[in-house]
Amino acid sequence: MRILITLVSLVLFSSCQSDYEENNIAIVIHGGAGTILKENMTPELELAYLQKLEEAVKTGYQILQEGGTSQNAVEETIKIMENSPLFNAGLGAVLTNDETVSLDASFMEGSNLNAGAIAGSQYIKNPISAAISVMNDSPHVLLSSEGADEFAIKMGLDTMPNSYFITERRLNSVRKAKENDRLAVVDPFINDYKYGTVGCVAIDKNGNISSGTSTGGTTNKKWGRIGDAPIIGAGTYANNDCCGISATGWGEHFIRNVVAYDIAAQIMYDNKSITEASKKSLEKVMKTGGDGGVIGLDKNGNVSMEFNTAGMYRAFIGNDGELIVKIYSN
Amino acid sequence: MRILITLVSLVLFSSCQSDYEENNIAIVIHGGAGTILKENMTPELELAYLQKLEEAVKTGYQILQEGGTSQNAVEETIKIMENSPLFNAGLGAVLTNDETVSLDASFMEGSNLNAGAIAGSQYIKNPISAAISVMNDSPHVLLSSEGADEFAIKMGLDTMPNSYFITERRLNSVRKAKENDRLAVVDPFINDYKYGTVGCVAIDKNGNISSGTSTGGTTNKKWGRIGDAPIIGAGTYANNDCCGISATGWGEHFIRNVVAYDIAAQIMYDNKSITEASKKSLEKVMKTGGDGGVIGLDKNGNVSMEFNTAGMYRAFIGNDGELIVKIYSN
Repeated sequence: MRILITLVSLVLFSSCQSDYEENNIAIVIHGGAGTILKENMTPELELAYLQKLEEAVKTGYQILQEGGTSQNAVEETIKIMENSPLFNAGLGAVLTNDETVSLDASFMEGSNLNAGAIAGSQYIKNPISAAISVMNDSPHVLLSSEGADEFAIKMGLDTMPNSYFITERRLNSVRKAKENDRLAVVDPFINDYKYGTVGCVAIDKNGNISSGTSTGGTTNKKWGRIGDAPIIGAGTYANNDCCGISATGWGEHFIRNVVAYDIAAQIMYDNKSITEASKKSLEKVMKTGGDGGVIGLDKNGNVSMEFNTAGMYRAFIGNDGELIVKIYSN
Repeated sequence: MRILITLVSLVLFSSCQSDYEENNIAIVIHGGAGTILKENMTPELELAYLQKLEEAVKTGYQILQEGGTSQNAVEETIKIMENSPLFNAGLGAVLTNDETVSLDASFMEGSNLNAGAIAGSQYIKNPISAAISVMNDSPHVLLSSEGADEFAIKMGLDTMPNSYFITERRLNSVRKAKENDRLAVVDPFINDYKYGTVGCVAIDKNGNISSGTSTGGTTNKKWGRIGDAPIIGAGTYANNDCCGISATGWGEHFIRNVVAYDIAAQIMYDNKSITEASKKSLEKVMKTGGDGGVIGLDKNGNVSMEFNTAGMYRAFIGNDGELIVKIYSN
């Protein structure tokens, strides 16, 4: 009898161990949602987006496969998109009304609910790394404007002159917007309105979930406007007990509907799946007059990539290693 | 039979009308939570706090009684606390590391989930009015730094030189903090640590809930730090379908736990009362290492004034007109 109990215990123990060791790894990214239509896209540009999304998501996945942390995977994945002029984050971010780039980013760690964010940086090369540094190296969650830049310099992060971030296409874009006094503008890449922002959620082999979001905000923004990307609960949220989320869209509506945390709350308190919860939160965004998209992973590695715009740049690799890269709704 | 149905309909109709017309009005305020102990308080100072809290809450209540909106009640009530040197908001706010005042505030309207906020203002006399103006007069939710000041000036709001906000007591306080390189400091008013911030939630006769929060943040703050007060979902939330909330405490923990919206989510998704939900959210704050308090009203006018610090400056007037003003835990 004692031998039987020992055997059962061993089996149960090894089953728990095995669950732990074989936690589903997964990574999901977005590169912005908006009226992204195939008829407005050249084959070359479409290919460039698909290739960069693939490069970014594979970089993070490899880190996870090799036993790296979700924090590291999210940081390195977002850096690839920040360093590409294709996306509205880091190099190639949209311009403010005074024709400078002003960068926002946030990061959250699901194991301990630690978080960091910056808003209104003019010089930080990789805002996602600065957000992680605010989390790790300061007693604060959100630093802004010159203060965020000062902090990054003190921490020895890479900084660049503001001109590094500015691309001719975004300059043309903001000038057209200013002529028409509009906040959004015909996108120079796809000849249509869109909201760019990049984001990533990853779960590592230890079951730790991390989420990050990085953006240049809205073309022609004024008055030190801060959108949802650097706001924990609106643009970014992570909690190992339920899920990780990163949002992209009309930031004001994502703040008013506390979108990232609303998805988590539905999973925690209302027993919804991550897809059901994402859909419901986006319905709330539509109800107040906004649009956009969200990506997310729940604690079991289930993915959600929902949006109520024509398209969303997005990619996913789950535990089986299969790559999904998509732009349009189908 | 037809007469009976008509009579029943009339009774039902008049009962609905009566419910609508006699919606419970209520107003609740806080003036900061912290280690506020009776033994550290002089009788004169205690009286000054009690009188100012009473003046503030009665001002808002009178607006509600006369049929005014909860927006107006919250604005006028918070202005009284911003204009008093007793609280860490507006005049008498705590000082940053560079010995200036930097003000944050937010406002949310429960009928349509509109919201406005400012962070890092140096000149706006009444930050709560600027938050309301951002909501009403801009396409944005959150404006920051010089941009927030520029916007307020453009809108014709009252501005003051930064020196107007600075009091000798707060100057001594930040200098002591800098000597010790601490973020919080022995409070010059009560010889103990505390977090000041002011907030108000009101429900008017039409059942509209509004919430507002205003603060100078943390003594000795650096790098353009933004706390929870201007963050919708963290420091402030309002939704006619469930409740209005304003928080005060260690801002970083209120952001990480998305406190204001977490309370609303528990009411909406988990059928909790506002008191149960407030207690649970504050437990989460303690779990990550923070402390503070929250005030709230649900859609029926039920009040919650919870905190896990020694005291919280607070006052409440419900539909019966009875005034409650308290400082300590009993």
